[in-house]
Amino acid sequence: MVSLLCINCKQEAGTEVHQEIKSDTIQTDPLPSWNDTAAKKDIMAYVNAATDENNSNFIPVKDRIATFDNDGTLWSEQPAYFQLYFAIDRIKSMAADHPEWQNKQPFKAVLDNDMEALNASGMHGLLTLVMTSHAGLSATQFQTIVNDWIKTAKHPTKDVSYDKLVYQPMLELLQYLRAHQFKTYIVSGGGVDFMRAIVTEVYGIPAEQIIGSRVKTSWDYNNGNPVINRLPELDFNNDKEGKAINIHHIIGKKPVFAAGNSDGDLQMLQYTASNPHKSFMLYIHHTDEQREWAYDRESHIGKLDKGLDQAIKDGWTVSDMKNDWKVIYPFEMN
Amino acid sequence: MVSLLCINCKQEAGTEVHQEIKSDTIQTDPLPSWNDTAAKKDIMAYVNAATDENNSNFIPVKDRIATFDNDGTLWSEQPAYFQLYFAIDRIKSMAADHPEWQNKQPFKAVLDNDMEALNASGMHGLLTLVMTSHAGLSATQFQTIVNDWIKTAKHPTKDVSYDKLVYQPMLELLQYLRAHQFKTYIVSGGGVDFMRAIVTEVYGIPAEQIIGSRVKTSWDYNNGNPVINRLPELDFNNDKEGKAINIHHIIGKKPVFAAGNSDGDLQMLQYTASNPHKSFMLYIHHTDEQREWAYDRESHIGKLDKGLDQAIKDGWTVSDMKNDWKVIYPFEMN
Repeated sequence: MVSLLCINCKQEAGTEVHQEIKSDTIQTDPLPSWNDTAAKKDIMAYVNAATDENNSNFIPVKDRIATFDNDGTLWSEQPAYFQLYFAIDRIKSMAADHPEWQNKQPFKAVLDNDMEALNASGMHGLLTLVMTSHAGLSATQFQTIVNDWIKTAKHPTKDVSYDKLVYQPMLELLQYLRAHQFKTYIVSGGGVDFMRAIVTEVYGIPAEQIIGSRVKTSWDYNNGNPVINRLPELDFNNDKEGKAINIHHIIGKKPVFAAGNSDGDLQMLQYTASNPHKSFMLYIHHTDEQREWAYDRESHIGKLDKGLDQAIKDGWTVSDMKNDWKVIYPFEMN
Repeated sequence: MVSLLCINCKQEAGTEVHQEIKSDTIQTDPLPSWNDTAAKKDIMAYVNAATDENNSNFIPVKDRIATFDNDGTLWSEQPAYFQLYFAIDRIKSMAADHPEWQNKQPFKAVLDNDMEALNASGMHGLLTLVMTSHAGLSATQFQTIVNDWIKTAKHPTKDVSYDKLVYQPMLELLQYLRAHQFKTYIVSGGGVDFMRAIVTEVYGIPAEQIIGSRVKTSWDYNNGNPVINRLPELDFNNDKEGKAINIHHIIGKKPVFAAGNSDGDLQMLQYTASNPHKSFMLYIHHTDEQREWAYDRESHIGKLDKGLDQAIKDGWTVSDMKNDWKVIYPFEMN
């Protein structure tokens, strides 16, 4: 019998045999898209200490939980969350079956491409759009629709598909942490099933390590073909304190590493900062209006205000995208 | 630089290098506490096919999700769920601060050791007990209390600590599946934080692979020492269709292997049976009144009635504990 044995699962006792393998990548830079500024040095010093058994800040593999926000932290979120564009496109594709939407807000605003009227519909209008476009389907149907959408939809100003707008330096950071046996999670305000349909392959993060907001669902045995149906009601809003609460419910451990870009991530970073192990809190600061967008304290999307104050006060790492990142997106590389 | 590289994480793309290692355990029986009856043969034939790339029933590592019920499937659940004994012990330890409980049901029944009156208090009485004993604490305090309890509490008839009453054949099955790169989860009606405090080491399953019922919680920043507080209200009942729904929410994939022992596990097994990959459904049938307990269709605890009918009709594997298992508990081994 040949067993497939593994060293990256020390958290599971069992028959696994662990082995150390010398990497061929000796001396190569694990974060080549990061400039040699403080952020990169902070990250590498932290990881070196956390993985050195002789260091007082060593962290056992089972506790190496790293959580990342998605919108604005792993991919762009301007001029609006990408999931909202999905909702808009889906409403348009559903409109033929809903002639009443021609005169009913917020649907009329979507069909007229009237962003001003859409914004005027407020949070209630946006929630109506998202619930209408994301529910009334089985989980499997929804996944197929999102999969199909991402293949053809284009970002309104960048004119590339949305999954191209991930941050190359953050892809490298995810890989770097995983190579050092950190378990990488997404913990996002975005819909969990929306993300699972798109980002697993992009980030190399499996479905079971993606945590997000969710709608209520129901179970239907359906004569032996069970269906999980998506209902038009929010079940959990994975934002602000919701991120810390969901990390507790789903992971059951405090992270040792957390990255975000907005006040919506603050409680996740505060929770991480309270880990008895030495922890690392990273804020991505959107400072590059040429290559990406520049926004923080006054932005409606990705507002970073209280979080920036606490990061400065408590000495968390704030990465300045303009100065710290050689490239923003993978397609900018040679 | 020496990297720790791993083959058991194919689901995470990244810098991992995968390597096949010949096991030293050639020819040893991976399930030594199972008799050579149909159940053992079924399981091993399934795993051999699922892990053989040349077999039409091969399953990619990322899809090898195995979910196990806990009470009655991985450890005993008679004469009452072990978590209920924790609740009773906790109520007794809290009683000095609650003189009013001397004359108030269901607390009076607990303090009088009057199981008849306790049963008469019905589901509402039991829920009151559990909520009172499990809430009003931070998540960290609760974990400490459960940890302390398991070290001293004894099962009322077996007179050993509760964590000794796990099933040796099932420990072997968990290890066997993990050695073949299945990711093993607990999906139980029991409280998730109660289980996490006890069973991680016993089963070799990390906190983030334990799914259970949960109470509502709140977040308190607490001047830089964040606290997740447990509130006396059920947030999610992880039983029956709740198991399938929570598997969807938290894992995001259908299991390929599921084990249970009661009708409360039926939807999880139905969901697993609908996996496009060839899947394995296992019911543990409590048939051994000498070594454990014998119960099924008429039992108040762990009732197995509709599940047994469907297992027989659909050809799921039903393991007869009396005939299939050489030993029940680890302490019965030499």
